[in-house]
Amino acid sequence: MEKEEFRKYGYELIDWVADYLEEVEKYPVKSTVQPGEIKAKLPSSPPPHPEKMDMILEDFQKIILPGITHWQHPGWFAYFPSNSSPASILGELLSAGLGTQGMVWETSPSATELEEVVMDWLRQMIGLPEGYAGVIQDTASTATLCALLAAREKATGFKINEAGFEGVLRVYASREAHSSVDKGVKIAGFGKKNLVAIPVDEEFALIPGQLEKAIENDLKAGFRPACVVATVGTTSSGAVDPLKPIGEICQKFGLWLHVDAAYAGTAAILPEKHWALEGAEYADSLVFNPHKWMLTNFDCSAFFVKDPQVLTRTFEIHPEYLKTGVDAVVKNFRDWGIQLGRRFRALKLWFVLRSYGVEGIKKIIRRHIHLAELFHDELLQDKRFEILAPVYFSLVCFRLNDGRPEEELNHLNKQLLEAINSTGKIFLTHTTLNGKFTLRLVVGQRTTEERHVREALNIIKTRAEELLKKNI
Amino acid sequence: MEKEEFRKYGYELIDWVADYLEEVEKYPVKSTVQPGEIKAKLPSSPPPHPEKMDMILEDFQKIILPGITHWQHPGWFAYFPSNSSPASILGELLSAGLGTQGMVWETSPSATELEEVVMDWLRQMIGLPEGYAGVIQDTASTATLCALLAAREKATGFKINEAGFEGVLRVYASREAHSSVDKGVKIAGFGKKNLVAIPVDEEFALIPGQLEKAIENDLKAGFRPACVVATVGTTSSGAVDPLKPIGEICQKFGLWLHVDAAYAGTAAILPEKHWALEGAEYADSLVFNPHKWMLTNFDCSAFFVKDPQVLTRTFEIHPEYLKTGVDAVVKNFRDWGIQLGRRFRALKLWFVLRSYGVEGIKKIIRRHIHLAELFHDELLQDKRFEILAPVYFSLVCFRLNDGRPEEELNHLNKQLLEAINSTGKIFLTHTTLNGKFTLRLVVGQRTTEERHVREALNIIKTRAEELLKKNI
Repeated sequence: MEKEEFRKYGYELIDWVADYLEEVEKYPVKSTVQPGEIKAKLPSSPPPHPEKMDMILEDFQKIILPGITHWQHPGWFAYFPSNSSPASILGELLSAGLGTQGMVWETSPSATELEEVVMDWLRQMIGLPEGYAGVIQDTASTATLCALLAAREKATGFKINEAGFEGVLRVYASREAHSSVDKGVKIAGFGKKNLVAIPVDEEFALIPGQLEKAIENDLKAGFRPACVVATVGTTSSGAVDPLKPIGEICQKFGLWLHVDAAYAGTAAILPEKHWALEGAEYADSLVFNPHKWMLTNFDCSAFFVKDPQVLTRTFEIHPEYLKTGVDAVVKNFRDWGIQLGRRFRALKLWFVLRSYGVEGIKKIIRRHIHLAELFHDELLQDKRFEILAPVYFSLVCFRLNDGRPEEELNHLNKQLLEAINSTGKIFLTHTTLNGKFTLRLVVGQRTTEERHVREALNIIKTRAEELLKKNI
Repeated sequence: MEKEEFRKYGYELIDWVADYLEEVEKYPVKSTVQPGEIKAKLPSSPPPHPEKMDMILEDFQKIILPGITHWQHPGWFAYFPSNSSPASILGELLSAGLGTQGMVWETSPSATELEEVVMDWLRQMIGLPEGYAGVIQDTASTATLCALLAAREKATGFKINEAGFEGVLRVYASREAHSSVDKGVKIAGFGKKNLVAIPVDEEFALIPGQLEKAIENDLKAGFRPACVVATVGTTSSGAVDPLKPIGEICQKFGLWLHVDAAYAGTAAILPEKHWALEGAEYADSLVFNPHKWMLTNFDCSAFFVKDPQVLTRTFEIHPEYLKTGVDAVVKNFRDWGIQLGRRFRALKLWFVLRSYGVEGIKKIIRRHIHLAELFHDELLQDKRFEILAPVYFSLVCFRLNDGRPEEELNHLNKQLLEAINSTGKIFLTHTTLNGKFTLRLVVGQRTTEERHVREALNIIKTRAEELLKKNI
């Protein structure tokens, strides 16, 4: 592609993205295509000869776009958000244009040093004490795996890295912890049965006393406790494990404390929500995702560690072909995680933090939380609905409850969810809380306003009414 | 940022990238900043209030750009390339604009199905048999780790995932294998000492007979052999492990064969280089990187498996909040690797494959290989230089050798490398081969032409001459 052609299609795509961000509301938020439908429209073999960009872009519109579920839609209330912003998109474009790969300091000093700086900005924003060092990971799943591995190595004096697994090492997390903890203990070789599920209280938060008991039992049984994963903002209900008492237990028994604040960590930039990270100074590591709720397009996961040497000792490799003359005095982020190669993700984060400023980001987070509270309050007015968990941040868990038996209620609410999503106007997902099929509504898209939340309320109530009439 | 502002800065950045790709040659290929220099120019705290994009872009030019090492520079001969293309950049822009996250089919059917399709195109291009299923990973490090984990679970009937490590499992790779294999065996809990380094022949390729002997010895010792990693295109010298005899051994002993073709896999799209993947049909998994040598900007690593069920059984998680109504009939790529969240990387790959066409890509790969051969032939004319490994692809390993003792030669060549890179015109890196400090020159940037290779030859010879005069 010649320069002028790149410029032409570049402008065209910028225009398209500009329009898309403004008009995304016109699409059904959740794609309505059937499994296999997109695949059937694509050639089964690669084109032998160059094709015109016009044709490719036309196919994008005709074939690909109908199969997109629109995460940036203001009616996105599903899962957790993965919000983005114009500034972030521009940063990603520039990063792709540079095509820089920051595996070691020397392969782009700016990539490493800007990452150090913006990660320290984030540290200050969420109120982690000085001394914690940050690194960008792709996802919280990866960050949590890194924490589990560092904990594993610290607990065994770096012996598993060297000689392989020996003995039984135990990991503790509440039964509401994210599935990435299950995945991580499997990958790191602990084994799923050595992930001890600690009971939760009525607000779905880990009970510290139960944690302590579990650790003591394990010690008696001859197991070696290695790591506790505490969650700030669980996926199912937004519950907050109390970090301070958990941290004290970790300290007492010499265990690694990893804090998974993937979703709710962002809220801690608000003084009124900082309580959620109270006790975070006990953490050996902590992760939160600017790509979830801080306007930075996926992927960008912020991982902090108290003692970077444990992390780098866990991951370091020293092949001759990667050695540089400055290794002794710089950070080589290849040793801070699993991957060797690294995109220049700090750039988009820098664009976001500067173009919004801390106050600008706070304003948006506050709006989301306010809208979730509004949804909660309005829904409570309708006695047919029931709130199933406290609303600390921007997630509301609820269900329709007309008093029928639990099993029938689960069926009813599943139908309700399908009916809601079939409108194409909003997209919600579900979980189970104490066995109850639970609808989750999370406010978090950059452009979600009060009218979208009111529309959601309206759709939910109308569909519920229709269902109740039909089902009798 | 308002729509018109996004459009304005979007155009500006498209222009900047267009110019950059054309003029990147004017920058020193390797950044000349000192450690800490970039950091010192950046504020230590985040800005409280929004800043103008003009200011941010000005700082990008003034502060960030001098700290960039220019991977897309035509004088980039270091490491392996991580080349890119205008089409790929446009694809990345569109993907960032959509802000789609394809963790499960339902969160964007197009993301999953386009990935299936383009990965099958790649499968055909490199000549892997039908039946192999592909998934995009971020890096070959991650792909190799996934392979090691699947091998681990297959060898133990998925018991380590469940109950944790027990017994000694062994992994085999040549001593020239990539450091990601070392890293992977540590992460997966095998332990580094259970990675058996198999000797190589005089061309740095794994010796199958030695592999067989090592496996037999381990069996006698009561160890459980689990996985062999064969490399097609080693990092140090581009060596090719012979897949067919290795595959036969793996079959005989029931071991997982993972093929790391991260760099050289791309070359297999050329009929004249397909020999390198001969025997790949024995592979249980194979990885190669379109983000290295196939014009697709980092990250995009193509990972293929023969039996996807082993992979998904290794990684699957089933929390309620991720269940969808179509799970039984679609691919949910979250279960094909470590991360839950997934960027829409298939889009840029689709842009690249269509806008170049298979023939267009072949032409570029052939040019790179031809230029490496040219460099090799010309350098050989100069009797002061020595070629240290066969040139199969686009990597040439060489050193200056005036007959002085080995240790002094190492020192001399280290000085030579520094002198070459200090010109800012070209960037080479090094390795050691049989203890010899070796300079590596890899041709692989999209815009590298004969004149750049001739300039490299000229710089290398001139600097060598200067050094030899000085050192006597």
